[in-house]
Amino acid sequence: MTSRLLLLGAGRSASSLIEYLLRYAPTESWFLTVADVNPAHLAPVLAAHSAYARVVPFAIENEKLLSSLVGEADIVISMLPALFHPLVAQACVQHGRHLATASYVSPEIRDLHEQAIAADITILMECGLDPGLDHMSAMRAIEHIRARGGRLTSFKSYCGGLLAPEAEADNPWQYKFTWNPRNVVLAGQSTAKYLEKGHPRFIPYQQLFARTETLTVPGYGDYEGYANRDSLSYRAPYGLDDIPTILRGTLRRPGYCAAWHALVRLGLTDDTVKLDNPETMTWQELVEAYLPATTQQLELPLRLATYLGLDPAGEVMGRLNWLGLFSERPVGMANATPAQLLERLLTEKWALQPHDHDLIVMQHLFDFELNGQQHRLTSSLTVKGDDATHTAMAKTVGLPLGMAVRRLAQGLLTQRGVVIPVQADLYEPILDELAQDYAIHFHEEEAMA
Amino acid sequence: MTSRLLLLGAGRSASSLIEYLLRYAPTESWFLTVADVNPAHLAPVLAAHSAYARVVPFAIENEKLLSSLVGEADIVISMLPALFHPLVAQACVQHGRHLATASYVSPEIRDLHEQAIAADITILMECGLDPGLDHMSAMRAIEHIRARGGRLTSFKSYCGGLLAPEAEADNPWQYKFTWNPRNVVLAGQSTAKYLEKGHPRFIPYQQLFARTETLTVPGYGDYEGYANRDSLSYRAPYGLDDIPTILRGTLRRPGYCAAWHALVRLGLTDDTVKLDNPETMTWQELVEAYLPATTQQLELPLRLATYLGLDPAGEVMGRLNWLGLFSERPVGMANATPAQLLERLLTEKWALQPHDHDLIVMQHLFDFELNGQQHRLTSSLTVKGDDATHTAMAKTVGLPLGMAVRRLAQGLLTQRGVVIPVQADLYEPILDELAQDYAIHFHEEEAMA
Repeated sequence: MTSRLLLLGAGRSASSLIEYLLRYAPTESWFLTVADVNPAHLAPVLAAHSAYARVVPFAIENEKLLSSLVGEADIVISMLPALFHPLVAQACVQHGRHLATASYVSPEIRDLHEQAIAADITILMECGLDPGLDHMSAMRAIEHIRARGGRLTSFKSYCGGLLAPEAEADNPWQYKFTWNPRNVVLAGQSTAKYLEKGHPRFIPYQQLFARTETLTVPGYGDYEGYANRDSLSYRAPYGLDDIPTILRGTLRRPGYCAAWHALVRLGLTDDTVKLDNPETMTWQELVEAYLPATTQQLELPLRLATYLGLDPAGEVMGRLNWLGLFSERPVGMANATPAQLLERLLTEKWALQPHDHDLIVMQHLFDFELNGQQHRLTSSLTVKGDDATHTAMAKTVGLPLGMAVRRLAQGLLTQRGVVIPVQADLYEPILDELAQDYAIHFHEEEAMA
Repeated sequence: MTSRLLLLGAGRSASSLIEYLLRYAPTESWFLTVADVNPAHLAPVLAAHSAYARVVPFAIENEKLLSSLVGEADIVISMLPALFHPLVAQACVQHGRHLATASYVSPEIRDLHEQAIAADITILMECGLDPGLDHMSAMRAIEHIRARGGRLTSFKSYCGGLLAPEAEADNPWQYKFTWNPRNVVLAGQSTAKYLEKGHPRFIPYQQLFARTETLTVPGYGDYEGYANRDSLSYRAPYGLDDIPTILRGTLRRPGYCAAWHALVRLGLTDDTVKLDNPETMTWQELVEAYLPATTQQLELPLRLATYLGLDPAGEVMGRLNWLGLFSERPVGMANATPAQLLERLLTEKWALQPHDHDLIVMQHLFDFELNGQQHRLTSSLTVKGDDATHTAMAKTVGLPLGMAVRRLAQGLLTQRGVVIPVQADLYEPILDELAQDYAIHFHEEEAMA
């Protein structure tokens, strides 16, 4: 019997997912419908697969089309922006169709749990990279430690969408955008919370990038991690309600956070106020406007360094200067928020070049007691992009999702309601397939303290 | 002919307005309907005036009642929270009734301008203290300077809802809540913008309370002012499009801002994240959670002072300690934002006592050139509350509004659409009446530089 798969949204990050679905469509008896707002670029990709795949134009505003497409499918996969998922999930509940996405369970999605059970469907969420592969790999390691009789005392987990070392060389931040720039500019704009030795720890935004931890990833050297917004919410799904230390964080290369901290302190990441600025305002005029007035005749970079207490010849100032903050370049957007202006500048300065390869880095650090001994297990994943289409981001988001959908289509995933991949019968085969077919696997090191 | 006045919302701050309206109802042939969600406390007040006043129970959720009450009135006065004003204004447009409020013109209200003109009604906004009396008094001074041939080069204006000196004595912050505590806790949470000598100036939130200016108010001593969110928007309505310097600010007693700055830096004013805290968490545990982990065995206040670079025996630490930040007192609210916890604490620590009198302070500073000379005009207002009901806040918000309504009812305000009190024919008689009948007047000093 043919399974009818509907993929909603086929942007850049869906490339590996689409290839995976096309790879298995003939043998698994799937018919794939790809629905996207810009279907033109997909036609050539799907042309060779017309026996079991088609593309249709689709915009989320067209609720009728959404309803009819969902009604004609057995499983819906959504790569649309997360804010549209409640709409898609409601259509899936209504028509009794399974849904799979790589997005977080939002409160609106969580509210559909009982209705999804009543409709006998699975709403499989958080099945990409982060969230997704992070859950799967952490749960495998946690279960393994438990099976050995270990007692977890600390779990720290970091992830970053970064650059292969060759692509870092021309950029002192060692960073370029491999996903939504706006999310990077606004990252962390609230209080981060985590647990440390049984005590809650809170970090306000204006301190977040000053409180980093250094990690070493085999083969790639050092990274620094800053805390994510909410590490506490991972305790319940992971069965770690009593763990004394839990922290989730985001990775950057050393030095990035100190320089970003300077941008935060200066005020350039604020997105709440439009500045009434003309488009022709220059970057040096903008930076000038943030400094307290002075009668001293010092140059702008020196005044900024003094204001923020930075070494005028140091690395932070070097990174700020490289961005062109002291240049006569126009900000290029009238009446914008500082965050919008910064995003505009960074989108150019941090643009991924055609020859650049991206790199996904994930590292889990588990401390546990076993037979009266303290152990530390470090589990690291690095995935390099193949090219500008088959990025590491596209692979690590799309492949776990595709694999989960394959198991759902095979009837091997019988849990109903809103589900995330923390059950061994779901994540074990996916982790195995990623390792065997795609060489995506974690490197583990264990040491006794 | 009787004018039918409808007052929506009669909370604490409406006391002086209601008395004003009752004072003039017999002579002006008004019939006043006071509609409030808790009408019980008003019945005795209005009982002696039953020939020309009544009270009705009213909740804003009851749209039918809103529509029928507005339909039965000639002029609607709203003291409801500002977010309800679009709803009230729409009803006024629909029924062709004038509206007067003490709230800012919101984008939704601004959008009703053409419809209000078409309905031949006046939507009179910003007619209280700030906004309200600030516009009136500033415009009178500006027009006076212009009439003398002066050219304005700088306009700074500050206002604060503060305490009479006797009420300050038992509180090192010299501050207690005389209006919405939540607004005080969340004050300034975005980038402030103003103009200085022709240059835009931006202050991010985390610097706002560190960049204050000191002002002296005759008879009351020194205050410090921090910049309000948007000073630029005052240029157009005041006809000051080309002024090189414009700043609006909020007044506190010296020392308040430095101590508040410490709370901001610590992270206690954030309202974006719930902390997952138990109700029994103590204040010292909360403060502890914000400090970086340490192996040193120092006391909490000393660690905080070190972290924020404060003198352990200084005034800022004294104010923080007085709040009980280092105490074993429970925060008293589970899973709250830091701002909610801080508001809860301050509502008790900064409670106005029955014998306390509040004080409104407003000061305008005008710099102008006249006959080749630099002049500075300082215009200061201080209004002390009579008692816990007739607070300075209630008087200065309610009386200008009542006086504007009186002129509207007399047919003396003929401007239609959305109006704010920046026209001399509206503000001159109000400023005169405030001075003559209520001794609310500005003290002016002029000096040559």
